Amino acid sequence: MTQRRMMEELNWEDFERLPLAQRAPYFRQSSGRPYHCVIAQQFDRESLDSLCDLSTRIRRIAKSKVGSDFLSSLMRNKRAMLYFTQPSTRTFLSFFSACQILGFSPAEVRDPSISSEMKGETKEDTIRTFSSFFDLIIMRTPAQGFAEKMAWMISRTERPVPIINAGSGKDQHPTQALLDIYTLQRSFERQGGIDGKTVLFCGDLARGRTVRSLSGLLLQYRNVKQIFAAPEALQIGEDILQQLRDAGVEYEVTHDFKKKISEADAVYMTRLQDEWDAKPGESAKGYRQEDYYFTGEDLRKLSPKGVIMHPLPRRLEISTECDDDPRAVYWRQERNGMWIRAALIATIFCRDQEITQYYMLNNR
Amino acid sequence: MTQRRMMEELNWEDFERLPLAQRAPYFRQSSGRPYHCVIAQQFDRESLDSLCDLSTRIRRIAKSKVGSDFLSSLMRNKRAMLYFTQPSTRTFLSFFSACQILGFSPAEVRDPSISSEMKGETKEDTIRTFSSFFDLIIMRTPAQGFAEKMAWMISRTERPVPIINAGSGKDQHPTQALLDIYTLQRSFERQGGIDGKTVLFCGDLARGRTVRSLSGLLLQYRNVKQIFAAPEALQIGEDILQQLRDAGVEYEVTHDFKKKISEADAVYMTRLQDEWDAKPGESAKGYRQEDYYFTGEDLRKLSPKGVIMHPLPRRLEISTECDDDPRAVYWRQERNGMWIRAALIATIFCRDQEITQYYMLNNR
Amino acid sequence: MTQRRMMEELNWEDFERLPLAQRAPYFRQSSGRPYHCVIAQQFDRESLDSLCDLSTRIRRIAKSKVGSDFLSSLMRNKRAMLYFTQPSTRTFLSFFSACQILGFSPAEVRDPSISSEMKGETKEDTIRTFSSFFDLIIMRTPAQGFAEKMAWMISRTERPVPIINAGSGKDQHPTQALLDIYTLQRSFERQGGIDGKTVLFCGDLARGRTVRSLSGLLLQYRNVKQIFAAPEALQIGEDILQQLRDAGVEYEVTHDFKKKISEADAVYMTRLQDEWDAKPGESAKGYRQEDYYFTGEDLRKLSPKGVIMHPLPRRLEISTECDDDPRAVYWRQERNGMWIRAALIATIFCRDQEITQYYMLNNR
Repeated sequence: MTQRRMMEELNWEDFERLPLAQRAPYFRQSSGRPYHCVIAQQFDRESLDSLCDLSTRIRRIAKSKVGSDFLSSLMRNKRAMLYFTQPSTRTFLSFFSACQILGFSPAEVRDPSISSEMKGETKEDTIRTFSSFFDLIIMRTPAQGFAEKMAWMISRTERPVPIINAGSGKDQHPTQALLDIYTLQRSFERQGGIDGKTVLFCGDLARGRTVRSLSGLLLQYRNVKQIFAAPEALQIGEDILQQLRDAGVEYEVTHDFKKKISEADAVYMTRLQDEWDAKPGESAKGYRQEDYYFTGEDLRKLSPKGVIMHPLPRRLEISTECDDDPRAVYWRQERNGMWIRAALIATIFCRDQEITQYYMLNNR
Repeated sequence: MTQRRMMEELNWEDFERLPLAQRAPYFRQSSGRPYHCVIAQQFDRESLDSLCDLSTRIRRIAKSKVGSDFLSSLMRNKRAMLYFTQPSTRTFLSFFSACQILGFSPAEVRDPSISSEMKGETKEDTIRTFSSFFDLIIMRTPAQGFAEKMAWMISRTERPVPIINAGSGKDQHPTQALLDIYTLQRSFERQGGIDGKTVLFCGDLARGRTVRSLSGLLLQYRNVKQIFAAPEALQIGEDILQQLRDAGVEYEVTHDFKKKISEADAVYMTRLQDEWDAKPGESAKGYRQEDYYFTGEDLRKLSPKGVIMHPLPRRLEISTECDDDPRAVYWRQERNGMWIRAALIATIFCRDQEITQYYMLNNR
Repeated sequence: MTQRRMMEELNWEDFERLPLAQRAPYFRQSSGRPYHCVIAQQFDRESLDSLCDLSTRIRRIAKSKVGSDFLSSLMRNKRAMLYFTQPSTRTFLSFFSACQILGFSPAEVRDPSISSEMKGETKEDTIRTFSSFFDLIIMRTPAQGFAEKMAWMISRTERPVPIINAGSGKDQHPTQALLDIYTLQRSFERQGGIDGKTVLFCGDLARGRTVRSLSGLLLQYRNVKQIFAAPEALQIGEDILQQLRDAGVEYEVTHDFKKKISEADAVYMTRLQDEWDAKPGESAKGYRQEDYYFTGEDLRKLSPKGVIMHPLPRRLEISTECDDDPRAVYWRQERNGMWIRAALIATIFCRDQEITQYYMLNNR
């Protein structure tokens, strides 16, 4: 049964009741490729490996002008809408660049005040309007579950188009998790990959959707130990820990970040998510920044093959002294986001094999 | 005498005194093609038929990648400015997409606060600046007659460029009328076209420039009956009725919308234009939404070959229950806007014959 | 020693202490081409002549579709970021168009409220983020010296990209000076070029960075006399006059603009820069607009081979009566900005020779 047919047979209320893990087939093409990308849970080990491999191929092909020209010829006849009603420059530019790499003509709707004509119409009608003009919708909105609902809705219309979730509420930001996985995979390429590594998460773990998504995706790998270092009020959620216990995965919860650095293969720093504070400054109380701050001195504790990651933007989580250290991979991590988003989009539009063939012929 | 020469010989005050119907030659190239597109009155039956035909060809050519590549090669060396100081997402995106289809590189100026440097300079200078960098100006402004004045002005400079009016004040929105005509033409393609059909307009007819323009363009077709259903305060203007009487066209004015549905070939719903209210909510008084609302039940009254149209955005004019009915063509109507705008721009730049030739060779 | 190596060996404090004239080598590629473009002082006569020649070639090549296609194939694999946090439409559009001419896919960050996610991160991190996704950064910011500091910073990273200053504070706007030079060079092409000409500057000379930069660049030409006409409070700075004296160049300072018109080969009008006023309207005091206003009558005083220039936007500096006079070159000057910016970018990316070869083969 096709993805579209499945969607048509399920009303939204029933769909919403499905556990996350059971929704994956609804976002998948019959070939197994993703059609929509809305939740991190829709990716399994095989699809993660494919995306990482394709990202690397795209990255290498793009190094030459002739390779770039090949890539940008792939989707030249398609148009993408970047619908970002929640502020975001980094994710926006990363998707914008990914679209350009593949030859898409991107258009954007960002400032809601510009689109005031649309006031008074439902959000469903707005998204249908985008689907009238564009072949792909990439959206970031503050409303939890919105991208998913729109994916359900648009799949049932006469003119369905793929929807990519670029962040919805506190909840899902699946492509951030993908770029984190790609960064870990690249970093440990010559050390047997992600399997068997230890990842130390540090910072505001209670509210960072990045950490929550990545923690889940790491379950796809073998024997990855997860350590969560945070003050008690910002510690990782019990639901995530339950998920780790269910999977029989080793983990540790601590407030002593500094002590754990030497154990980690990857240190994943995150910032205080105080934009979600009910009262301004609330979450900063009792949070001693210096305890969750990676300094130049900490570089000595970190394994020579270890890496420091950060989803950026940073505030005071990593000293700029670390920026020149080869283990500081956060700038590369940011650029990886562009590559894996290009890989994701190319896969959605079934151009992955063409890219792989080009790579085999020209770049090996 | 060329269009430019004609403009040079007429000062603005004399031009402004010309009846609308007499202005057409000033916006026309010597080949008969439009150069500027500023008022609905400049199109006659022949040019409407040409634009509709070309739209269909572009739409079909664009279905294949090789066809899209052909289309986007046509104007790759040209740049378009979309100057939208009045909020509009739908019209903007439709033009933006039309430009991309033809290979234009579009640029935009929308938020007037961004362009504050331009404060202090006259609007004429702003438009001349655009003409310094761009080859086409598409503009939407709140000022009535502004696009027309700029077309007159720019035609007299050293570097004239075509100007397309994407909506000026309460007055003109010619490309909306074109897309409505194209939608009617497509809908009745196998029923002998628009000639002889009955169009039922419903809603805020007093202030909807869409209806006013479309009503006028329908005079180009034979025996089209027009019915206007609205509460008295929002009924169609006497000037429009006079125009119909002058043309000897059958029409009807009523407040009983529901009763007329079964008579109509096309039902054209419009929303309350309350953004023009002097006092907020003023025009909603005495307007019973349920009387001018197309429901699922009304589908039964509508002829099996009839269509329901709406310029969008909708609020409460059409129930979403109707969305899946094949006679509900408003989403297709929206997409038609993109095609006919591409056709218009291609015609302005004299690429219509090349497209037609390509179509004859490859798509028939 | 490469530009990058030089930057690495100098910390910012030492760099900042260097006189402007000594900074040029740090922005230069080993081939002599500019890598960054941040200060007007980095251009010498030879590089100005090269840029002017290349601009003319690009301008002529772009006239044909096949030529445009050649130009836009040059940089199709590159992406440019236009980072404009200070309002500017003219400069922005000019750069945007220049990028499009060369085939760049431009992206933009303008409204700081959109990028509020970036709040909390340092400006250095923001620029590094751009360098993660883009191959060229064009920036306009209100902070003096910021573009220069970013050029220094980015040159020392793993992924340096060229930075072009599109205006920083009251200080530098080097590409405006380049387009002024190109306009003078084009205007006097058949009169032996810029050497030996007299340039009359008029208006707010104290604060116009345009005039300050152009005055300096004119020192690269032989025997150019400079006349400064302004009310005392807005007269040209003593530092500029000292620079002229040091170079042994003839100059004159006056408040009688009208009397000097007949002496000038080029009249360069500027507007009151009252956006820098500490108190609103402050600088307008004692400034009699009519004394520094070029009228239709003044056309008679101007030499038949003379030109009137203006960096635009204009307010009341030049009567619109002058617009049709062939000596009024300000609209052409504006368009020249697009051409010389394209030439600058092509040179930075070492595509200048390829363009020249194409020109020699096809356009001579």
